[in-house]
Amino acid sequence: MTGAAIPGARYFEDFAVGDVIESQSATLTESQIMDFALAWDPQPFHVSKPAAEASMFGGLIASGFHTLALTFRLFWQGGPIQHTNLGGLGLDNLRWPKPVRPGDTLRVTVEVLELRPSSSRPFGHVRLKYTTRNQHDETVLTAELLHLVAKRPG
Amino acid sequence: MTGAAIPGARYFEDFAVGDVIESQSATLTESQIMDFALAWDPQPFHVSKPAAEASMFGGLIASGFHTLALTFRLFWQGGPIQHTNLGGLGLDNLRWPKPVRPGDTLRVTVEVLELRPSSSRPFGHVRLKYTTRNQHDETVLTAELLHLVAKRPG
Repeated sequence: MTGAAIPGARYFEDFAVGDVIESQSATLTESQIMDFALAWDPQPFHVSKPAAEASMFGGLIASGFHTLALTFRLFWQGGPIQHTNLGGLGLDNLRWPKPVRPGDTLRVTVEVLELRPSSSRPFGHVRLKYTTRNQHDETVLTAELLHLVAKRPG
Repeated sequence: MTGAAIPGARYFEDFAVGDVIESQSATLTESQIMDFALAWDPQPFHVSKPAAEASMFGGLIASGFHTLALTFRLFWQGGPIQHTNLGGLGLDNLRWPKPVRPGDTLRVTVEVLELRPSSSRPFGHVRLKYTTRNQHDETVLTAELLHLVAKRPG
């Protein structure tokens, strides 16, 4: 926030409403799904194969918190806000319209929805819409995250 | 969903708007914060001590996704919906009003906000408001989760 701008970093002024950023993809394994769920969301349809088969899902599915964490990770590793995101304020309208199953490959599209500069502070509010899709192009997660992004120094 | 009701399980009919459920508490260690963040949210103020000290937070803080996952886990392990939650549809109005720091002890209060039975299916929609507080009684997370909860069999 102080000193010179970091070359290549995307500052608040570098975002425009409607910009779209695509992430890399990642394949979610059965073990990953079960490990995450056992720690954070040990519902039967996330951790027990027979229980999952008997559930309305017909088999193991990933915790929605897992899909959310992976969504953020995939966007983050792409780099656009790695040097300029100062924090997150909140998350709105998260939906999980389709389950995520072992072997699914997810990728994320992020769209800039809203930009609000702070008049007095060296950052602005950036509302990003995350859409996560599987290998069949089905949407498995949508959410809006409200970021604090640094303004360009100087 | 079929067969006899499970003794002690809390079915859709057992919820009333305004009901409040308190969770157990858990203390979050520095290692836990750094491990979670390195996998899912490797922002400097979650994984790097010098960078965190130089950030607006003045030290390491937990990923908001970590606080969210722990919030759900603490509620879940208390048991009220362990046999009856059929899935989650989404999450609204998540806010992280205060950072979570190493050594903080979190506990969750869950309030029933809204109940909508399905007229034709064996479940209902239950909107729960989660409020997570630290050992100083400061709120560190609020969120509304929309659950599908099984109706009592028969």
